[in-house]
Order: sequence, then C-alpha cells, then structure tokens
Amino acid sequence: MNLQKGTSFGVAIVGCGTVGAAVAQLLTRDSEILRARLAPRLDLRHIVDVNFDNARRAGLDEKLFRADLSAALDDPDVRAVVELVGGTDIPRDIIAKALQAGKHVVTANKALLAYRGRELFALARKQGLTIAFEASCAGGIPIIRALCDGLIANRIDAIYGILNGTCNYILTGMTQRRLPYCQMLSDARKLGLAEADPTLDVSGTDSAHKLAILASLAFAGGVDFKKIPTDGIDRLDLCDIAYGQELGYVVKLLAIAQRRPEGLSLRVRPAFITTEHPLAWVSGPFNAVSVYGHATGHTMYYGRGAGGMPTASAVVADLAALACGTWQEIYRNLPIWPDITKPADQLPIEDVLSMYYLRVMAQDRPGVLGQVAAILGEHDISIRSVLQHEPHKNNASAGVPVVITTYRAQEGNLRAALAQIDKLECVRSNTVCIAIVDEHSEQV
Amino acid sequence: MNLQKGTSFGVAIVGCGTVGAAVAQLLTRDSEILRARLAPRLDLRHIVDVNFDNARRAGLDEKLFRADLSAALDDPDVRAVVELVGGTDIPRDIIAKALQAGKHVVTANKALLAYRGRELFALARKQGLTIAFEASCAGGIPIIRALCDGLIANRIDAIYGILNGTCNYILTGMTQRRLPYCQMLSDARKLGLAEADPTLDVSGTDSAHKLAILASLAFAGGVDFKKIPTDGIDRLDLCDIAYGQELGYVVKLLAIAQRRPEGLSLRVRPAFITTEHPLAWVSGPFNAVSVYGHATGHTMYYGRGAGGMPTASAVVADLAALACGTWQEIYRNLPIWPDITKPADQLPIEDVLSMYYLRVMAQDRPGVLGQVAAILGEHDISIRSVLQHEPHKNNASAGVPVVITTYRAQEGNLRAALAQIDKLECVRSNTVCIAIVDEHSEQV
Repeated sequence: MNLQKGTSFGVAIVGCGTVGAAVAQLLTRDSEILRARLAPRLDLRHIVDVNFDNARRAGLDEKLFRADLSAALDDPDVRAVVELVGGTDIPRDIIAKALQAGKHVVTANKALLAYRGRELFALARKQGLTIAFEASCAGGIPIIRALCDGLIANRIDAIYGILNGTCNYILTGMTQRRLPYCQMLSDARKLGLAEADPTLDVSGTDSAHKLAILASLAFAGGVDFKKIPTDGIDRLDLCDIAYGQELGYVVKLLAIAQRRPEGLSLRVRPAFITTEHPLAWVSGPFNAVSVYGHATGHTMYYGRGAGGMPTASAVVADLAALACGTWQEIYRNLPIWPDITKPADQLPIEDVLSMYYLRVMAQDRPGVLGQVAAILGEHDISIRSVLQHEPHKNNASAGVPVVITTYRAQEGNLRAALAQIDKLECVRSNTVCIAIVDEHSEQV
Repeated sequence: MNLQKGTSFGVAIVGCGTVGAAVAQLLTRDSEILRARLAPRLDLRHIVDVNFDNARRAGLDEKLFRADLSAALDDPDVRAVVELVGGTDIPRDIIAKALQAGKHVVTANKALLAYRGRELFALARKQGLTIAFEASCAGGIPIIRALCDGLIANRIDAIYGILNGTCNYILTGMTQRRLPYCQMLSDARKLGLAEADPTLDVSGTDSAHKLAILASLAFAGGVDFKKIPTDGIDRLDLCDIAYGQELGYVVKLLAIAQRRPEGLSLRVRPAFITTEHPLAWVSGPFNAVSVYGHATGHTMYYGRGAGGMPTASAVVADLAALACGTWQEIYRNLPIWPDITKPADQLPIEDVLSMYYLRVMAQDRPGVLGQVAAILGEHDISIRSVLQHEPHKNNASAGVPVVITTYRAQEGNLRAALAQIDKLECVRSNTVCIAIVDEHSEQV
C-alpha cells in the first residue's frame, strides 16, 4: 500500500470554507514545502462545494471546482476525501459515501465523531480504510499523534486541556481587561473567533466533544461525551474573576480527564488555577493540553486551536501520513473501533475530589458565617480561607459576598452542603461554586 | 515488512545505565501498557553491558544479561538494537556492527549524531535500515515526531528551545533563590541532574548538539554543529540576573534557529526574555521547544528533557514505530541522509539581529555615559534605557555598573562598538553583553 517517491496520492476536498481553502492552498500554492519533506506527491484533484466565493477569494484554481461529490468519488486516483462541511448529518453521508467508494477520510469534525463516530469507524474498518482526525482536537497542535505515537509507552494518568480558543479569548479579556462576558463575546464575533451562534463553544460542549476524543485515545476506552459533566462560561460573573485574582487564581475553561482506581473522572467547566500553574499563561485564542504519563511525567502541547491555516496544517499532516501508509498502521490498533473497544467507566461528578471557591451572598449580620461553616463541617468540608467583601454598589439588598475557599472535598458532599446553605434564611441567592484545580501531582 | 497483531519484534539493549534500565522496565514490567496500544509485541531478548549492578537494582531478569554484543547481533529474532552506552567512539562501533548485522538502531546519543551522524546514516541507508533518535532531543517530549510528521505541511520559520535541563535548573535557582552558579551546580550534582564533568551541559555544547539535529530536520539541510556559535552559563554573574529582573527579564539558555532570506541563523547562549514570554515560566529541569510554522504559527512542546523514564519513553516510542513499520516510511525522506541533503547556509554570528543588555563597569565620574553612547551611536545602535546602579560593595574600584539596553541592532556592529568601549580609559573591565530575545513575530 505504501507509495514510492514521486507517486501520486489523489485528494478531494469537500467543503471549501476557511479551513477547506487553507488546505487547498497548502496542497497547491505551498506544495514545494511538502515536496521537500514527503516522498509521495499529494495531488489535489477536486474541490467540492455548492458555493465557490470563498474558493475564488483564496485564489484557487477554478478547474478544480465541482458542484457534485460523485466526480470525486468516481475518480479512481482519489485516495482520500477531506470532509470539512460542518454539522453532523450531511458530513455523515459524505463520509459514508467516501468510505463505500474506497477512499480514506480526513475530518476536523469533532461533533460528528462524538455523535456518529462508532458507526463511521465500524464502516471504515469493514472497508479496510482509515478515518484520520488530527484536526478535530486543538487545531494545529499534533496532540492526537502525541497520544497515539510519541507517548505510546505511557500509561496516561491525566489530561488537562484548554480546548476552546473562543472561550479562552473571552476569559482572557474578562480577566486582563475586566470586560464583561457579553462585550468579550461580541469582540470575539467581530474577530471571527466566535460563530454567529456561539452556544456550542461557550456552553463547553465543543470542549466536551474534544475531551471525549482525547480521553478515548489516552485511556483506551470508549468515552461517551453525553456523560461528561459540562458547564460553560456564559454565566461567569466578573466579580468572581476579580475575587479569584485577589486569591492568586485565574479562571480557565478546563477539560479534565483523570484515571482513578474506580474509573475515569471527566468534566468540562470553568476552574480556578494559580498563576504559577503551567496552563495559567495560555492566553487569547490559544489552546494547550497537559498530558501526564507514567514514564514522561508532565508534557504539554500548545498552539492555535482553530483558524484556517492551523487546522489545515493538521489535515495535511493526516493526508501525508495516509500517503506514506503510516497512519493506517497506527490506526489499526487505536481504541476507536467499536468492535475492539470497551466503554470507559465514567465516574459521576459527585466522585470528583477538588478544592472549591464559593461565593455566598449573605445578609450582613453576625452569625451568618457560623451557620455556613457548620453546614460545610457537617459534610466533611474544611474551610481554607474566608474573605468578606463589601456589598455590591447600588444593590445592597443582594447581600454581602462572603468568599470561602475549601480544602479538597468530595463534590457530592459539597453539592449536598450547598443545597442546605442556599436554603438558609440569611442567604440571598444561590451560592456560586468554582472548582480550584491544583497542578497534577506526579511521581516520576 | 509490517508486522501483524501478536507478531514479535525482538529488541536488544546495549548499555544498562539509568536510561537502559528504564527502557527494559517499560518493555517487561510495563509491557501490558504497550500490548493494549500496539499490535506487534516488543520482545526484549538481550541486555548487553559489562556491569549489571544497575540492571539488578532495577529488578531486571538476569536471564537477559549478556557480557558480549555478539549474542544480540547473532540472534535473528533481534530486529532493533538500542544503543545507550554514551561517548562517541564505542557507540559508533556498536551502531556500525548492529547495522552490518541487519538490525535497526535506536539511540539517545546526540553527541554521536553530531560527530558521526553522516557516516552512520550513510551506512544505515546502504543497509536499508533506520537509525531512530527521538530520545536524543528533549527527552520525553515527542519533538522529532512533531517536526517530521505533525508539522510536515509547514515551512518552519524558527525554533527557540530550552534544551538542557541541567542549565535550566541552575538558572532557575540563580534567578528565584539568588544562589550563585557554583552552589546551584553543586545542588544539581547532588540531585543527579549534572554529570561529574558538567562541561558539555554548562558550556552550551549539549544544547548545540540538539539544535543541530532539530534544525537539520526543520530546515531540511545538513547543520554543522561545530559552526553554531555557542556560549554557556558558567560565566553568568548573579548581578546581571538581578539587574535583568529589575527590567522585567528572566535569563534562559536558549537554542535558537531562525530562517532568514540569506540563510540559517543559529546560536546557543544565555538570553534575557520578558516574564510574559512563552518560555519564561519553564522552570527547573524541564525543557521546552517553541516551533513557528508558516501554517500553524506558534506551537510549543514542554516536558522533561532528561532522566531515565522520560528518555525511555522516547526510546520505546521509536521501537514501537519501527515495529509498525511507520518510522522507516517517515525516515525514508528525512533530510538526514548525507547523499540527499545539502549543507545548510549557516550565517555568522555577526549577522544576528537582536536587542542587547550591556553592563559597562565605568568610573564614577561625569561624561562616561556620553562617551559610551557616542560609540554606540557611531555603530548604528540606539539606546533604549540606561540604569546606573550603586557600586559593588567592598569593591568600589571595580567601577559603577551602568546597565544599558539597546533597540534591535546587528551583532557585528555591537561587537565592534564593545571593542572600542572596553578600550576607554574610564571603563574598568570588559562589558557584559546578553542578548534580549523578543517573542517571535508571527503572520498567521
């Protein structure tokens, strides 16, 4: 199956938006770069779309434009189809047709893999073909390769990722410029960093899709993204970010996967980390993934998680590895095939062990802290610090913010305690709770 | 050549020190981890050494111990020899013999590759075999794979690396704990982070060996490490680290490679970076490599650059890729083979463009700064800031430290200016000069 020097590996791109056009540019305008480093020649033969405005703006060769997928599927020289359509239903059909036509598939579509992965990988395996998806997680960062190849000798113990550039851009602005969520979201839209409907990003769902993929590979078990407890950044209040800063913390939307004796602890949510934490400096639209292996200890991978060219870099790396025949070898044994992969034991959120930041909005009178502390104590939760802040201006009736940090506690206990605290007569609104995430402890 | 599920890929380890013992542990004690993720079975068949004290301490199976290399070379089931002996002459002979016996080679020996790489790669190519060397640079960080595989679609524009954990450990202590070089070196020795003779590390030579390897791969040209301008950390003065901190800088031993229109600009030396720079937080014995690609922009890779298990993780990844047949494919087209690689155009240090920190030790009288500034101006060097410090206690005759930072200037001009400045009657000793390295500017 391996191609020799100068042989050609035909490629069709389906969907010529930002990423599709960038892939086409790397394969045509920049083909000299690949030719100097890769024996087989990646030969772009078709660009399939319904609208070629973007393709024309990118200066692509009109002779490649096709309105019909079948031109690509019927071309025996096409060896791989790059699916960059977006959504889940149409791309599912495109990928199924490409596999049935005997073509390998490269995709950046994490939502599709989360919802339809099992079905499509089963079809690929039946056909003896590969679906490559480096571009689905963390854009230009070769994190799939790190997990499946570079770190193969490791038992992976934990992953901590900043996997959504839109959210990290918004949180960076809220933290450094003290601008409210709505304004940063609007800035992100203007810069093309957020979709018109940003729900998938800001709700944490996009990060959960990516965490499901990374955790499946790292922990060799089928992770169901629908069972990943997920919380977004859209309800974060500026005052909590500021109070966190006073305590030496910055907030990040973290995707976390930890191997525990009882199973896999997964979650996506805003979390406080200290300013010395290795992920604290990751700013703006950048992504980063910390991977803790039993042999390597902490390794970290950083780069742009989205954007045309960074994502295209990952797509073309997959095409190159398919053309060399290497990706097929590596994929042959990945835990992505439904028939050889057991479902992972995903632990409920109540089993999480963490420190917490709590903001209780209380009446400004003596005895309140005593009541709150008593309830925490009854639930086996030790207080680490308490900071009482001034009442919010213009809104004294909302109560006084009492900021409490706890030592490590079981999240189930914390939730039970908060349910009681929020019923206290002296508590004016639901307590805000943000996990505080320590640097992962290593034994290397 | 590719092995199928359950087939065996025989391995011999030559040299059972810290890394060799860790490789053996990953292949035996931890073999279940590999078996769950890799189709072929890595079968450790021989451990060759002259002394097995360390191997016994690691609990390895005595039945594997051999005093003679030929047992491994004569075994037809051995497909790869792992060379972990150290030095350059003996390992050169071991690798040549292994290749002549038809075995692939895996090595962590950057000095060997720097001095004998051309000869050994030529032999490997003649034999149709591969020398894999992921472990030679940055220990457990899969940086060779990132350059050759994950970033293959990129024209690499620059590399900035912290490639020597010993030096980074020493500099971290000098910066954070304000301890002098000698004490930190002695600490590093006690912790096993520095060799009895630390010259290779602290002189920057080890980093230059690694930079030669990374730059050859990234820029697809043969880099001669002997032509890399290299300066170590052994003459760094605590006072310069402290003055740098006042200006918002931290010092790191940086290995830098930049693509310039005229050629490749390479150097290894201590440099100041701002505390916001993406490499500033890399502390203690950790390594990190920033790679700037034309498609990805900035990507960064972080982890332990030395130590038994992290290095063994990279060695075993190479064995796994050889057993799958993937590494042979990728290596087939790497710019490491003398017959297909042109030498890189390495620019002289005088062509470097950088900002600089200067500490002039001057007589404490009016007019000194005017003389120094005039000479800098004559050489086209603009001053950015000047800070005059108190004379050193107990040593007023050494002069007053005048700390000058410059805007970007040509290093050739700077060197000419310093030669004149140091001849001034009012200047008491040679001016200290440390480059200030900006974050690489990107166009993504």
